[in-house]
Order: sequence, then structure tokens, then C-alpha cells
Amino acid sequence: MLSLLPNTLFAIFAVVCSLLLVKAQVLGALTAATRGRLKRFINKEDAEWLGGEHVATDDERVQRIFRAHRNDLENLVPFFIGGLLFLASGASSTAGIAYFCLFLLARFLHTFAYLHDFEVSRLKARLRNATYTLGWLVTIVMGLHAAVVALQSVMS
Amino acid sequence: MLSLLPNTLFAIFAVVCSLLLVKAQVLGALTAATRGRLKRFINKEDAEWLGGEHVATDDERVQRIFRAHRNDLENLVPFFIGGLLFLASGASSTAGIAYFCLFLLARFLHTFAYLHDFEVSRLKARLRNATYTLGWLVTIVMGLHAAVVALQSVMS
Amino acid sequence: MLSLLPNTLFAIFAVVCSLLLVKAQVLGALTAATRGRLKRFINKEDAEWLGGEHVATDDERVQRIFRAHRNDLENLVPFFIGGLLFLASGASSTAGIAYFCLFLLARFLHTFAYLHDFEVSRLKARLRNATYTLGWLVTIVMGLHAAVVALQSVMS
Repeated sequence: MLSLLPNTLFAIFAVVCSLLLVKAQVLGALTAATRGRLKRFINKEDAEWLGGEHVATDDERVQRIFRAHRNDLENLVPFFIGGLLFLASGASSTAGIAYFCLFLLARFLHTFAYLHDFEVSRLKARLRNATYTLGWLVTIVMGLHAAVVALQSVMS
Repeated sequence: MLSLLPNTLFAIFAVVCSLLLVKAQVLGALTAATRGRLKRFINKEDAEWLGGEHVATDDERVQRIFRAHRNDLENLVPFFIGGLLFLASGASSTAGIAYFCLFLLARFLHTFAYLHDFEVSRLKARLRNATYTLGWLVTIVMGLHAAVVALQSVMS
Repeated sequence: MLSLLPNTLFAIFAVVCSLLLVKAQVLGALTAATRGRLKRFINKEDAEWLGGEHVATDDERVQRIFRAHRNDLENLVPFFIGGLLFLASGASSTAGIAYFCLFLLARFLHTFAYLHDFEVSRLKARLRNATYTLGWLVTIVMGLHAAVVALQSVMS
């Protein structure tokens, strides 16, 4: 089994996490920017400030970006928790690199599937579904893996 | 005061966190699965792919699972932040075990109260309320406890 | 460049995080408390228990607190991830203190701007916008900074 210096695995995790948090923050800002572009605001003071309409619910286009963002955070939290426990437990580098890179790939493709206009909508739905499932599986397997290694190191 | 090896307290935290993240992820998947079962989708491409209805807002049954999930994440984030700071601050194991186990118990009962069909709805509301409050208190007390211990270790 | 003991920077981070998590949790509880005060509940069992109305969507006043809370968590997650990576990467204390304190300030002012009744609504919108942007920038710069330092320490 591959055995990197702990620093190297940590550096990979740091890069993966910072790419993911930048993406999540870009989605957050995109929600606000799209509200501004459509001139429809859910906060009254924004409508007054920027001269738009005050609406009770966001436009469908804003809601879609928001859902992509929300789904990102819902998965980023378990990933970060699991990943940090994994690093701290001192488990295998090979597994760690695989988990981190698979999750990174899955979540960037998930955002792409959510926001890109595909010609065939079935493809769009399938890619979103598959990448969500992949990221989901990584968080669960990695979290349980970390818990098992942490328990083993205590018991031995 | 009980004093475990740092590894042991970490292992307990790792197990508690991984159980909580698995539960949160199961709730996330359950939202999607319930949408599929009811054949009502908020994304147009899902409705086309799976042959269902495209709706503006989720069914009440989906929204309930979603709210349970959201409430979970809203509390999991402060718990994980507080718990990690607590571990890093080197504070007492007794308090740590108490915080971790109380939170774990509170959140599993909270999900149970949210999604189980009680005969008496007052009981359902009360259990949800009590377990939310317990988990809430744990995050705040543990967070402040960690901050105080971290400050003390710097000042001494 | 300022160089604190690692413990001191960690203590500052712990205090900042615990203040932020307490604020987020207070917003969470405030949502529930406002529902109770207005006697309008989105869960049927709460309406039955506390003798109120069962409504499909929260009152605008509840939704506003909820949005302040949600925006808090959306930014707290990237901040905590970035901050922890930053601490672990061993980067400069000066930058760390600046990031932590700017973010703390930005988020407390953001909540104030969201929930306080300003005479001039344009001011309210501008303050919210400026503090959101400041906190947003901190998470991104800090996250990338941590990733770069972690990579450098591996490559050197």
C-alpha cells in the first residue's frame, strides 16, 4: 500500500477542500448575481436599493443555482468531517487519495450537470444523479473507514 | 476527573461523527428517493427522465424529510466545529464523552421524532422540541468550553 | 512577520469559531421562537401542541431570520474548512489573525444588517451586501492561501 508522508496527503486534502469551497462560494455569489440580473429580490430593501421587484419566492433560475449550492454544502460538510477524521486516524494514503479525488471529480461534474444546458435532458438528469451518488458513497465509506481505523488504533 | 489517552477520545468523536454523517446522508438520499416514489420532481429534467410531474414545490412528505435533514446539518456543523476545537484544546475527557454521547442521542431521537408517526401528535412535537434543545445546548456549551480552555492554555 | 506560538493562533481561532457558532445557533433558535410567537407552524404537530395555525410556508418575518441563519452557515462552513487548513498548514500568524478577525466582524455586522430595522432601507441593503462580500472574500483568499502553503511545504 502506498505510504506518503502525512504532509503530502494533508496537502492533497487542503487543495481539494479549497477548490470545493471556492466552487461553493462561487455558487453562493451566483445566486445573488442572478437575482440582480433578473431584478427580482426576496428582501424588500434590495428591491428598493437596486430598483427591482420584491417577490415572495425566487425565480426558478435562481432556485436552480441555489439548489446546486445547497446540495454542494449538504455533501461538503460530511466530506470535510469524514476527510479530517480520515487524516487524523492515520489510515492508508492510497484510499485517501482515491476518496479525495473521486469526491472532487463527482462534485465538479454534479455542478456542471445541474447548471449546464444539455441538449438531451435525460443525460443531464442521469449525470447529476450518478455524480451525486458517487460523492454520497465516498462520504459514507470514508467516514466509516476513518471510524474503524480510529477504533482499531485504540484497541491495539 | 477521567483522563483518557487523547487517541481514545478522538476515536469516540470519530465514531460519533461518522454515525451522524451517515444519518445525515441517509436523510439526503431519502429526500431524493421520496421524490422518485411520489413521481413529483422540482427539476424538469428529472420529471422527463423518470416520467413524473414537474412541480414548483416539493410534496409535504418530501419537505418534512428535507426539514429533518436541514435541521441535522444546521446542528452538525456547530457540533463538529465545537467538538474539534474541544479535542484540540485538550480539555477533560469526561466532559468530552458526555457532550459527544448526549449530542449523538439527541440527534438520533430528533430524527425519529421528526419522521415517526406517533399516535399522539403532542408527544411527537415535544420529543422533537426537547431533543433539538438538548443538541443545541451541547453545541453551545461545548464550543464555549473549548474556547475557554484554549484561552487558559495560552495565558498560563 | 508576526510569529505567535501555534497555540495562540489556535486560541484566537477557537474563540472566533465559538462566537460564530453561538450566533448561528441563536439564529436557529430565534426562527423557532418567532414561529411560536406568531403561532404559525409548518409542522402540523406543533400547531396542535401549541394551539396555532398550520401553514404551508413560514411567515416573512420567520423567513428573514431563517435566511440570515442560512447565509451564516453557508459561509461558516467554508470559513471553518479554510481556517483549519490554514492553522494546519502553519502559515503566517499575521495573515491568520487578519482573516479570523475580519470574518468575525463581517458576519456579526451581516446579521445586524439583516435583522435590524434601519430608517433608510438602502443603507440596510448596502451594509448587508458589503459584509457578505467581505466574509466571502476572506473564505476564498484564506482557503487558497492555506492550499498554497500546504503545497509549498510538501515540495520544499
